[in-house]
Amino acid sequence: MDELEVDVVAEAEVDDPVLVEGLPGVGHVGTLAAEHLLEELDEESTLIRRVYSREFPPQVTIEDGIAELTCASIHAVSNPDGRDLLVLTGDHQAQTNAGHYGLTSAFLDIAAEFETTDIYSLGGVPTGELIEEYAVIGAVTDEARRDSLEEAGVEFREDEPAGGIVGVSGLLLGLGARRGFDAACLMGETSGYLVDPKSARAVLEVLEEAVGLDLAYDSLDERADEMEDVIGKIQEMEQQQQQQSMELPTDDDLRYIG
Amino acid sequence: MDELEVDVVAEAEVDDPVLVEGLPGVGHVGTLAAEHLLEELDEESTLIRRVYSREFPPQVTIEDGIAELTCASIHAVSNPDGRDLLVLTGDHQAQTNAGHYGLTSAFLDIAAEFETTDIYSLGGVPTGELIEEYAVIGAVTDEARRDSLEEAGVEFREDEPAGGIVGVSGLLLGLGARRGFDAACLMGETSGYLVDPKSARAVLEVLEEAVGLDLAYDSLDERADEMEDVIGKIQEMEQQQQQQSMELPTDDDLRYIG
Amino acid sequence: MDELEVDVVAEAEVDDPVLVEGLPGVGHVGTLAAEHLLEELDEESTLIRRVYSREFPPQVTIEDGIAELTCASIHAVSNPDGRDLLVLTGDHQAQTNAGHYGLTSAFLDIAAEFETTDIYSLGGVPTGELIEEYAVIGAVTDEARRDSLEEAGVEFREDEPAGGIVGVSGLLLGLGARRGFDAACLMGETSGYLVDPKSARAVLEVLEEAVGLDLAYDSLDERADEMEDVIGKIQEMEQQQQQQSMELPTDDDLRYIG
Amino acid sequence: MDELEVDVVAEAEVDDPVLVEGLPGVGHVGTLAAEHLLEELDEESTLIRRVYSREFPPQVTIEDGIAELTCASIHAVSNPDGRDLLVLTGDHQAQTNAGHYGLTSAFLDIAAEFETTDIYSLGGVPTGELIEEYAVIGAVTDEARRDSLEEAGVEFREDEPAGGIVGVSGLLLGLGARRGFDAACLMGETSGYLVDPKSARAVLEVLEEAVGLDLAYDSLDERADEMEDVIGKIQEMEQQQQQQSMELPTDDDLRYIG
Repeated sequence: MDELEVDVVAEAEVDDPVLVEGLPGVGHVGTLAAEHLLEELDEESTLIRRVYSREFPPQVTIEDGIAELTCASIHAVSNPDGRDLLVLTGDHQAQTNAGHYGLTSAFLDIAAEFETTDIYSLGGVPTGELIEEYAVIGAVTDEARRDSLEEAGVEFREDEPAGGIVGVSGLLLGLGARRGFDAACLMGETSGYLVDPKSARAVLEVLEEAVGLDLAYDSLDERADEMEDVIGKIQEMEQQQQQQSMELPTDDDLRYIG
Repeated sequence: MDELEVDVVAEAEVDDPVLVEGLPGVGHVGTLAAEHLLEELDEESTLIRRVYSREFPPQVTIEDGIAELTCASIHAVSNPDGRDLLVLTGDHQAQTNAGHYGLTSAFLDIAAEFETTDIYSLGGVPTGELIEEYAVIGAVTDEARRDSLEEAGVEFREDEPAGGIVGVSGLLLGLGARRGFDAACLMGETSGYLVDPKSARAVLEVLEEAVGLDLAYDSLDERADEMEDVIGKIQEMEQQQQQQSMELPTDDDLRYIG
Repeated sequence: MDELEVDVVAEAEVDDPVLVEGLPGVGHVGTLAAEHLLEELDEESTLIRRVYSREFPPQVTIEDGIAELTCASIHAVSNPDGRDLLVLTGDHQAQTNAGHYGLTSAFLDIAAEFETTDIYSLGGVPTGELIEEYAVIGAVTDEARRDSLEEAGVEFREDEPAGGIVGVSGLLLGLGARRGFDAACLMGETSGYLVDPKSARAVLEVLEEAVGLDLAYDSLDERADEMEDVIGKIQEMEQQQQQQSMELPTDDDLRYIG
Repeated sequence: MDELEVDVVAEAEVDDPVLVEGLPGVGHVGTLAAEHLLEELDEESTLIRRVYSREFPPQVTIEDGIAELTCASIHAVSNPDGRDLLVLTGDHQAQTNAGHYGLTSAFLDIAAEFETTDIYSLGGVPTGELIEEYAVIGAVTDEARRDSLEEAGVEFREDEPAGGIVGVSGLLLGLGARRGFDAACLMGETSGYLVDPKSARAVLEVLEEAVGLDLAYDSLDERADEMEDVIGKIQEMEQQQQQQSMELPTDDDLRYIG
């Protein structure tokens, strides 16, 4: 295999499509959002490209005993409610810095092949604490785009995210701008500790307005409920531990007394 | 030396051979199996290729003072009881992700040179606990092959191995499928903590049926007995420690009493 | 994007310019100095080149929601008080060893394009303790240059810095000398624990004399005062802790008494 | 700078020279030996080549304020007492696996340029304890050479060194053999914890006999005496600590009593 290979799985007619990227990252927000999109628009979607690269981990995934080489996938979506989409997903990020640059360049080549001009990269931004209201933070390559995204509910904050945006989601903006793409990153706030379907929903609701989409959220809400249960149990355990530690003397107490 | 060099050590007549790979990994199952195969079929085996690569660790092994550069070896085996074999072994895996891709491609080139169409990669799958009955888990590139392997005793499980298959064993399936090879991975269950000759035997018994082989296991069973002794001693020590800790007060107890 | 790309942002007329480098490093001395230089000579400065590289971290920085791809910047400065300058700054160093060599070569190419012969790399040298008097340690490629720098207040010490100079600051001398540049590194002493504007000022004062510059230091002194406040608070806290530990018996004391 | 560059510093007439390598490693045995060799044969030595590489750490060393780019050096030695030598030394090893292969290939190219057929790589083999009698362990590419080295006092042991030989010292044998060189590695036993001039002397005494050399050891013995003093002080401190811990009750004792 060459360093990078793009398999043409199928061809598809898409009209002025928007590239939407959701690869693994903080809170799995990007992948959850992209996969939910494909699930909801299943009948309008066609897998058109697979991208293989030596920069991906050297492994196969196994489903029902069948091995599939690690890759990124691009689906074409004929969107009945708005602009057509190219949806980029996958199970892995590149494993080296240079690999992120190489893969992003390949993704932009495919976007260019389909005459895409607009890009949305989806992800999470870690806050370090559990979230009540899920804000969506934005970053853009072109100042002009900020207003319309603010109308769609995106917040632009002076110094956030403080560490910038790392990986393909960031480079789609950084390398994209250099090649003339108009790119935006939508980042759902998330604790950073847990897979976060609610944050993915917040991001998708912005996307619905930005590109014209009409999504149902039943399956994503179900996953969110499951996560709520998990969080509830963790909090319960923590409270019990705190109570116990207030009631009983600790080893250290005993040692001082001893 | 170039990035990768293949030395032609000898030529060999093999008829429609199957590539069998056993490189270092979990429980050394793959290497134990491949080396036992070569030991048992010593008279029918010829070392035909050595593969050197900058991706291997930069070192020589020393035996009786003689230095040998790290490499992978391929033996041709004229199998009197079934299909001829190419057996791929070695002491090391590649040291980088890209190296795994590069080496696997080189191994597939050699397989193609000998008009191989079928591949078996051998390895172990860690269970985290000591094994009583050694199941062999399978993964294939072509669904059609699953049935015949199930008849040979291989189990195919819905989500196993959960983390996929990493390294050359995985990529022989992943890259192999892309080049038209029909590949299967046979993974013996193993604790993951110890070198496991019993798991290697379980894997070889499947291979015996799959490609037609008639192997003796005396030397492998001997090594298994030695490992049993080791395990027995470890368990004894653990039991003694547990008894002692039940009979005697510990430091912590004393501190509480103090 | 290629492995390395240089964007021509603007052209500038500079006469026999000196390259001054200040990239991130110990105490941020180099970046503080280079950025202060550009701030003070703002009206005489033009951003002329941006250097992008796969060796930089794969990320964008965000300011007011606008994404900028990680890069190094080169400004041309028409210096009214002495020699013209090319000032090299940036937020990141290369992430691999080979990357440092590649980026430094690219920087030297740009220096050569503007017919630069002299280079100053600016940085900090860690002492491990808080500094009262900020000495500036020097290293040069050409012994002849040592005398004039000593006159400007630079100290040359027999075995310092003991570990040599690592990164672009070092390689501008090492690779620069091989290409015929006359390069010097000016290293301000700094504790190594804190961002150090005072050390940056010490380095700039040497540079003022070496290339002919007339800088105000108000903004840098302000930042130094802020850092003094931080240091003062840390020392206060440490003293309080020491006093407490002298007055009160510790855990260990209590245990012996127990 | 290219990935690897060889500077021709001077030319030298050498007759059928032996390549002797001493780069940093266990106990600094190799570098100590090679540097002592050059010191003792100073008048017969000429620096002929410098090898620069992106695989070396990106740094300059500073001596009296003068910067020198990290490199490996090759001196030609006109040996009045035996075979002429090429002595390879340096302050650094390559920083990646592939780098070791690349640098060793470059060193072998230089050896070939001077029509060298024989190679000695010098190093240390760690024993984990302080050494009384310094044995020298050997490894060779050609069995025939073992006898003559055994006569010179080298020991060949069945399974040593167990982990093989890593880095340039190993690859000079591994890659050297593939290119027709006759190479041997001489490894002085050393604790592995300290710089070990005595081990370097043991290795050099073998080399004296192997290639015909007549070396004085005053300066190396002096360094060995200095190290002995250091070891003596460490041992004294350890004994005092042991005595104290025998005489005084420890924290743990007191806690039990408490």
